[in-house]
Amino acid sequence: MSSLPERIVIREVGPRDGLQAEAPISVDQRLDLIDALLTAGVTHIEIAAFVSPTAVPSMAGAAEVVARLGEPEGVVRTVLVPNVRGAEMALASGVDELTVTVSASATYNQRNVKMTIDDSIEQVGVICRLAAGAGVPVDAVLSCAFGSPYEGDVTPVQVATLVERLRAEGATAITLADTTGMATPRRIADVLAVVGADVGLHLHETRGTGLVNAYAGMLYGVRRFDTSVGGLGGSPFAHGAAGNLATEELVALCDDIGVSTGLGVEALIDAALLVEGCIGHAVPSRVAHAGPRSRHQ
Amino acid sequence: MSSLPERIVIREVGPRDGLQAEAPISVDQRLDLIDALLTAGVTHIEIAAFVSPTAVPSMAGAAEVVARLGEPEGVVRTVLVPNVRGAEMALASGVDELTVTVSASATYNQRNVKMTIDDSIEQVGVICRLAAGAGVPVDAVLSCAFGSPYEGDVTPVQVATLVERLRAEGATAITLADTTGMATPRRIADVLAVVGADVGLHLHETRGTGLVNAYAGMLYGVRRFDTSVGGLGGSPFAHGAAGNLATEELVALCDDIGVSTGLGVEALIDAALLVEGCIGHAVPSRVAHAGPRSRHQ
Repeated sequence: MSSLPERIVIREVGPRDGLQAEAPISVDQRLDLIDALLTAGVTHIEIAAFVSPTAVPSMAGAAEVVARLGEPEGVVRTVLVPNVRGAEMALASGVDELTVTVSASATYNQRNVKMTIDDSIEQVGVICRLAAGAGVPVDAVLSCAFGSPYEGDVTPVQVATLVERLRAEGATAITLADTTGMATPRRIADVLAVVGADVGLHLHETRGTGLVNAYAGMLYGVRRFDTSVGGLGGSPFAHGAAGNLATEELVALCDDIGVSTGLGVEALIDAALLVEGCIGHAVPSRVAHAGPRSRHQ
Repeated sequence: MSSLPERIVIREVGPRDGLQAEAPISVDQRLDLIDALLTAGVTHIEIAAFVSPTAVPSMAGAAEVVARLGEPEGVVRTVLVPNVRGAEMALASGVDELTVTVSASATYNQRNVKMTIDDSIEQVGVICRLAAGAGVPVDAVLSCAFGSPYEGDVTPVQVATLVERLRAEGATAITLADTTGMATPRRIADVLAVVGADVGLHLHETRGTGLVNAYAGMLYGVRRFDTSVGGLGGSPFAHGAAGNLATEELVALCDDIGVSTGLGVEALIDAALLVEGCIGHAVPSRVAHAGPRSRHQ
């Protein structure tokens, strides 16, 4: 366990992971949300998924989102691609980074992308080679890295083996996802001891452990985190999934413990309340409603 | 920062702090809840408050709760007393421990107990002397110890001064309460650096920081925590208060990181669902609904 970092990088995934399990909102609303997030200082943002609009209706119109957003200065625009066809469309759209997902859980992988883990990894290789040709980095997100809703525990060695294979296939970054909230500080430490801390953490609040896991991750040397404005999120394919760690909750914590994020918590709350209006129900984030501690009354 | 403890003591405050802001439920239901909590292994439990039933209707019948519960073996039965009259009634009922509250926030203290901080501390002295005569320990709970919803920041020196005065008045234990969720790991470290770690922590989820603060508290040497089954709670007198850290969420975390609590998470969830039926709405605890990670599917 080391000391806290001076700075972390937060990748905002609300417009993709946050919205994917919600009823669809319009492309205009999604662009307004992205705009509000950029106003809050977001520099890394997953803006869309090039997936089948039949499978995930809320992600329809990815190419339009990318085209209309343009290229805001200093912003890394990431999109999720589920397969080679999605990667081709994403690369044609001119984005800055691709995310691909492979699961450490065979059952989850089958349900999520209808493939074996081996087939998924092979496909990651094809996508990475395409992306490398276009000079675009690929972040491989390993879901269920701290436990599976189907198989239970996932060992650090299983994770390390998959991480090694994904890197060998050309993934330029690795993110470990706690898809159904099965991580704890101990499990994060155990996995990092094997794979090293040069990974992102993508945390969910299924069991209310998002913030404590992020804090432990920082103490263990992790410097990249995926979060979702308002704590939105959940998987349409995973029993028991729940929202992502809320961006404003991580930022509020970091602001007080002296870890720089570059993001403004009040503007993030504005974005959370904006998306609340779009989706028509309350977001789970507590900070979105109570405000940061500086807004104490 | 030290390593995690082998064991912590959890004081369950659901039957008092958890229920005080809810619509009243019957004494029978409150006893059923206490029984369910004892079945889960709870050994320290705040079972009632000897307060005015007009001011806090949900706490009516404290003497009946104490009398009908009896003296379960190995269980420390705590009650909250707001004043000398309450302390006299509590001591006559034969409980094992009293809690008294004083706030580090002058405005909060005034609204909560209609007294200045000085008057409250003087009253704690009277209560402590009465309790000492009966051989009963008194835990002085310092509310707003990490921030006030009215005055904002509270300094570690302010906290230390009040802790010293409370000990001088005869308090046998001190609990620092984060009444409106303004604590962070840094603020906990700053306060403990001045007052030492021989205190309890009473954490609220107003800003979603209960679990991370408990984790940090453990790393900083704290061994006693107040939690509420289901994450119930909130103050009837504090703007912006929200539920306590949920017992089952802390226990689920401790189970996986190797900190012994003596409590059974599944039985705690049973108790949380029991109280949900009594109060007629969902409890905020995520673990109560998702289950611990061992119940992954």
